[in-house]
Amino acid sequence: MFTEADHQHMSRALELAALGMWTTTPNPRVGCVIVRDRQVVGEGWHRRAGEPHAEVLALAQANGAARGATVYLTLEPCSHHGRTPPCVDALLEARVGRVVVAMEDPNPLVSGRGLARLREAGVDVRCGLLEQEARELNIGFVSRMTRRRPWVRMKIAASLDGRTALPDGSSQWITGDAARDDGHAWRARACAILTGIGTVKDDDPRLTVRAVDTPRQPLRVLVDSRLEVDLDANIVRGGNLLVACARAMPGKAGELRDRGCEVLELPNAQGKVDLPALLAELAGRDINELHVEAGYRLNGSLLREGCVDELLVYLAPTLLGNATGMADLLPPDTLAAAPRLWLQAVDRVGDDVRLLARLPDRLPVRPTAGASELHPESRAGAE
Amino acid sequence: MFTEADHQHMSRALELAALGMWTTTPNPRVGCVIVRDRQVVGEGWHRRAGEPHAEVLALAQANGAARGATVYLTLEPCSHHGRTPPCVDALLEARVGRVVVAMEDPNPLVSGRGLARLREAGVDVRCGLLEQEARELNIGFVSRMTRRRPWVRMKIAASLDGRTALPDGSSQWITGDAARDDGHAWRARACAILTGIGTVKDDDPRLTVRAVDTPRQPLRVLVDSRLEVDLDANIVRGGNLLVACARAMPGKAGELRDRGCEVLELPNAQGKVDLPALLAELAGRDINELHVEAGYRLNGSLLREGCVDELLVYLAPTLLGNATGMADLLPPDTLAAAPRLWLQAVDRVGDDVRLLARLPDRLPVRPTAGASELHPESRAGAE
Repeated sequence: MFTEADHQHMSRALELAALGMWTTTPNPRVGCVIVRDRQVVGEGWHRRAGEPHAEVLALAQANGAARGATVYLTLEPCSHHGRTPPCVDALLEARVGRVVVAMEDPNPLVSGRGLARLREAGVDVRCGLLEQEARELNIGFVSRMTRRRPWVRMKIAASLDGRTALPDGSSQWITGDAARDDGHAWRARACAILTGIGTVKDDDPRLTVRAVDTPRQPLRVLVDSRLEVDLDANIVRGGNLLVACARAMPGKAGELRDRGCEVLELPNAQGKVDLPALLAELAGRDINELHVEAGYRLNGSLLREGCVDELLVYLAPTLLGNATGMADLLPPDTLAAAPRLWLQAVDRVGDDVRLLARLPDRLPVRPTAGASELHPESRAGAE
Repeated sequence: MFTEADHQHMSRALELAALGMWTTTPNPRVGCVIVRDRQVVGEGWHRRAGEPHAEVLALAQANGAARGATVYLTLEPCSHHGRTPPCVDALLEARVGRVVVAMEDPNPLVSGRGLARLREAGVDVRCGLLEQEARELNIGFVSRMTRRRPWVRMKIAASLDGRTALPDGSSQWITGDAARDDGHAWRARACAILTGIGTVKDDDPRLTVRAVDTPRQPLRVLVDSRLEVDLDANIVRGGNLLVACARAMPGKAGELRDRGCEVLELPNAQGKVDLPALLAELAGRDINELHVEAGYRLNGSLLREGCVDELLVYLAPTLLGNATGMADLLPPDTLAAAPRLWLQAVDRVGDDVRLLARLPDRLPVRPTAGASELHPESRAGAE
């Protein structure tokens, strides 16, 4: 159904789309290549919300040569009026002959409509070329559209024996410079970065993107049930912070709001922050990818409550022995009952190794009361 | 100093040498390529102790064509009478013109002698081509010759979060079939496989090589301070077992000896098995590579006592939470004080990932009394 030339042009369109990795949010990353008589006559990629879509830029570059041409698009063109006019209209106006898209719009409300309109107008439309790659590129957008929650990527830096912090809480720096910089690139592509009050107390992180050059800083999100965050903490500086707490504390909340932060009450039945509700809240705020950099306890809570989609693990070639582990989780009853993840990628980053592991839909949820008594590690690490 | 052709022929000699990976012990793995007028006229590799050396086989294949030829050898030829006559004599008799060796004999008593004899006889001798590769190939032999201890490789199968066994001791199987088979290939190249009584009690392993086809079974070594091993344990069956204990128990020792096992008393001041002394003892028995498959406690003891050279870690994409860790070690006082290992190799094996990490000469040795009180994991796992 697709030729080798089709593959090549769609690969190029995906490359173009990836140029918007750090800027398009909350929009998806989209690339477009227009080919006529085997010549590329136009290329485009979406830069940021409010600016032209990839198709429009590519059509402008083609400047009339798009007539009868084939258009390669990493995502179905929009058929509705958003911040910009519908791209389907622009394609029809340019009288393109064939449209190849990698995937349909994941938004169930509009999915397929753009393609249908093109087909109705007599355009030869094909869908599904390099679809998997296109889905990966917009994994967060797809997640938000189809599941109404962000794609949650939990970053963990650990020793070879899986330990993330010494008993005194120190965890900076287990991994090397290259891994730290790489971590910033992952931060940069996320819409928001989440941490817990334990990490703020231990490390006082800024949670900004610094090691890579990006015009956009992700929203910072702090899980802080009792609003314990110090007003002078780095994460409070400069605002751009959403604090999720579990009880009304008008005084402290007001002080945080005075500093440009937002405070949200999201209690669950246990008097902690309702993490699934927080994810839904973030999806409602157009957060596609959520990058988590938290400690042992919050990591455990997020995993237990089915709030994690993949682990981004950096392992440093060192041994920390009986120090704090990656996440406060009870062992499964049997090895057969352990969750099966999937190793999406394994790469060396500097002196360290980076593993990207996908979780099954949910980890088995079991009662966690008593974990602190059973496992002294529960006392260490972050909330 | 070395041409591209030199590199090619030595690479081939190393390939040939590696064919003896599972059989040459206690001898080193050695390969030989003889080249005359750019033509390979002879190849050979050492198969097992008592059988001809690589040079002799290659010369036989060359059948006279070795005169004036260049001989590529992964290890300096022997100049002494061992189980076979000196290879230097054979090379001189064949009147070879040039000898290129990857490395000198690591045995300090004979190192350089073979090359000196060749030089004295007018042969053009070069040393050091692909030396690092040659050292890796015989890492155990080099260790035994230069340090009088085996090269100790500790295999650990763990979850992504660094856990090796559930609280009930179960650890079979965390990793998948491919990793298990791969582990057998590493067993096969070792001269001996060491475990502890805890693992024998928990898993009753055979510690034989099964998944790969090898004519040689490594010696089995059991660290069992109080001679608790059950006489019906799989590790006792078929003999080929050395049991290291810490106190005289003539009755049990006699029963083990009746079953073809050897029992060795090697107590240290703490009434445990003296592990460094055990390594020296094994080196004295011509053990080049020692493969360790033990549990949390013995792993910790071996690491603390500086008895480990590298870790062969298989990580399965699963999470076991607060289960038993890799090794009973106290955390370092600071992250800066943590041992720095070197990631020698990172590879995917089936659904798992395999990391080979080299240790620095010694891990910091600190008092271990009280570790059991501080860390409940000390109660789990093997001795």
